[in-house]
Amino acid sequence: MKLLIVGSVAFDAIETPHGKTGKILGGAGTYISIAASYFDTKPGIISVVGNDFPTEYLLNLNNHGIDTTGIQTITDGKTFFWSGKYHDDMNKRDTLITELNVLEDFDPKVPQNYQNADYLMLGNLSPIVQRQVIERLEKRPKLIVMDTMNFWMDIMLDELLKTISMVDVLTINDEEARQLSGENSLAKAAKKILTMGIQYLIIKKGEHGALLFSKDAYFSAPALLLDQVFDPTGAGDTFAGGFIGYIAKKDDISFETLKTATIVGSTLASFTVEKFGIECLDTLTDHKIMDRINEFATLTAFKKPESL
Amino acid sequence: MKLLIVGSVAFDAIETPHGKTGKILGGAGTYISIAASYFDTKPGIISVVGNDFPTEYLLNLNNHGIDTTGIQTITDGKTFFWSGKYHDDMNKRDTLITELNVLEDFDPKVPQNYQNADYLMLGNLSPIVQRQVIERLEKRPKLIVMDTMNFWMDIMLDELLKTISMVDVLTINDEEARQLSGENSLAKAAKKILTMGIQYLIIKKGEHGALLFSKDAYFSAPALLLDQVFDPTGAGDTFAGGFIGYIAKKDDISFETLKTATIVGSTLASFTVEKFGIECLDTLTDHKIMDRINEFATLTAFKKPESL
Repeated sequence: MKLLIVGSVAFDAIETPHGKTGKILGGAGTYISIAASYFDTKPGIISVVGNDFPTEYLLNLNNHGIDTTGIQTITDGKTFFWSGKYHDDMNKRDTLITELNVLEDFDPKVPQNYQNADYLMLGNLSPIVQRQVIERLEKRPKLIVMDTMNFWMDIMLDELLKTISMVDVLTINDEEARQLSGENSLAKAAKKILTMGIQYLIIKKGEHGALLFSKDAYFSAPALLLDQVFDPTGAGDTFAGGFIGYIAKKDDISFETLKTATIVGSTLASFTVEKFGIECLDTLTDHKIMDRINEFATLTAFKKPESL
Repeated sequence: MKLLIVGSVAFDAIETPHGKTGKILGGAGTYISIAASYFDTKPGIISVVGNDFPTEYLLNLNNHGIDTTGIQTITDGKTFFWSGKYHDDMNKRDTLITELNVLEDFDPKVPQNYQNADYLMLGNLSPIVQRQVIERLEKRPKLIVMDTMNFWMDIMLDELLKTISMVDVLTINDEEARQLSGENSLAKAAKKILTMGIQYLIIKKGEHGALLFSKDAYFSAPALLLDQVFDPTGAGDTFAGGFIGYIAKKDDISFETLKTATIVGSTLASFTVEKFGIECLDTLTDHKIMDRINEFATLTAFKKPESL
């Protein structure tokens, strides 16, 4: 197995100014693995669901070439459920319901056929669970990417810092970068976070794009201007899936490849926000993805002057 | 004369978290003309000052190759004075003092040697004054660029819209684009504003860069990540000066040239915010500017994948 993904597989119920859904398929692991599946990586996913989780959802993941052997089903448990409401300013949302359910006692198990993964993507989860997966791998992957959020900074910073120190790439948003570093300037924040044991940092800025930092350079990925962001849920997870999927496919961890992977992740995320949940992400084609990557490239291309 | 600039020449007193100044040289016209002067355009400026305006400030502009024949001195008047204070979040500032003084009755006169200008940059001023300059030119310039701000949207929207309909390029910030269009999405805002009689729109997003829109394409200029924004005063004016200066030098108004000009404007602005007032902008060299343009180009360069 080339690519191993850890993340929640869940139910979401979403309300935005454009409409609302019932209980639909959600979860970081879902978005990440579907996004990564477009790179023919046949990823394996480690997660946990309850007895209420529809088989058709698992089959959908399988149809994308995703190995779901590592999704445990807890027969007397219920699937993680999140419900949220976005306001006119889509950068703000209220969490209406969080039922952790089977996620509360999640004990991540690595199936034997998942061992020897070259690439590991840790979706947003308790940093303790994220660390357990790293520790339960017989061989350290070539690259470990970790997503997290402010919630873990608030309630278990020490555990979070310990896990961060074990990974190569951290992805967070701009507010989280400020919180984690205590620095208001993103340049200073990035410098500080890069001393926490990681090689690369990605700061996601939503409608303003994303920044990829190494210790001595950085790259600025633009955002596509969309007439309408329909539902931002899963955008960050989709970004992570496109990012790690492209890297796994190229099997290369140079800064150059990480730059392109940042554009690829942004591209995939720009599809996710066009519809509710995984609706748009679920039915992409190589052609659609390549067209949009080209659009991203056009967006920032300019002719450098030879002189003033 | 190739390039004509209209804008305030003024005194500023600035306080930021990093320190404060006494009365120093400021004003949109000052920043614009100094920025434009690096393109060997020998611009002429139309403005007005009072009897308290130091000759050395005029000489400084002349040393940059700026023609100051069009700066009227009102012998019984005082120079426009603005004082403001920035907070930790440098996107927010309080205006402490605004003394319009000679700007209140500003009647812009176009000296004969300024006629036939190919390029006109209207710095932020009353839209009535901006329009008077256009009307007092014997020949319409090839390109008219206009900067404005929310203040004029609040107090004289009709006059503003009338002037906007007479220019080719409008530059405003993201909040102003939302206010002017009534649209929250910048994509929708841009589409609407482009129906107001202009050919191009530039939306300045501060630390998130700038967007250049034509009717059928757009370009995303990144922002340089600075460890510290020392003083944002004049950043937008400097942007405008670099933008129009580069276009005037190239004597070309294609979208390609406007894209590069957007990068050049961003480059110049990135210097201005490094120190108080014009301190940094005043002493640039071609070498410094070209180095930073190259930095901008590196920031967004990536290798496009041939396939997924």
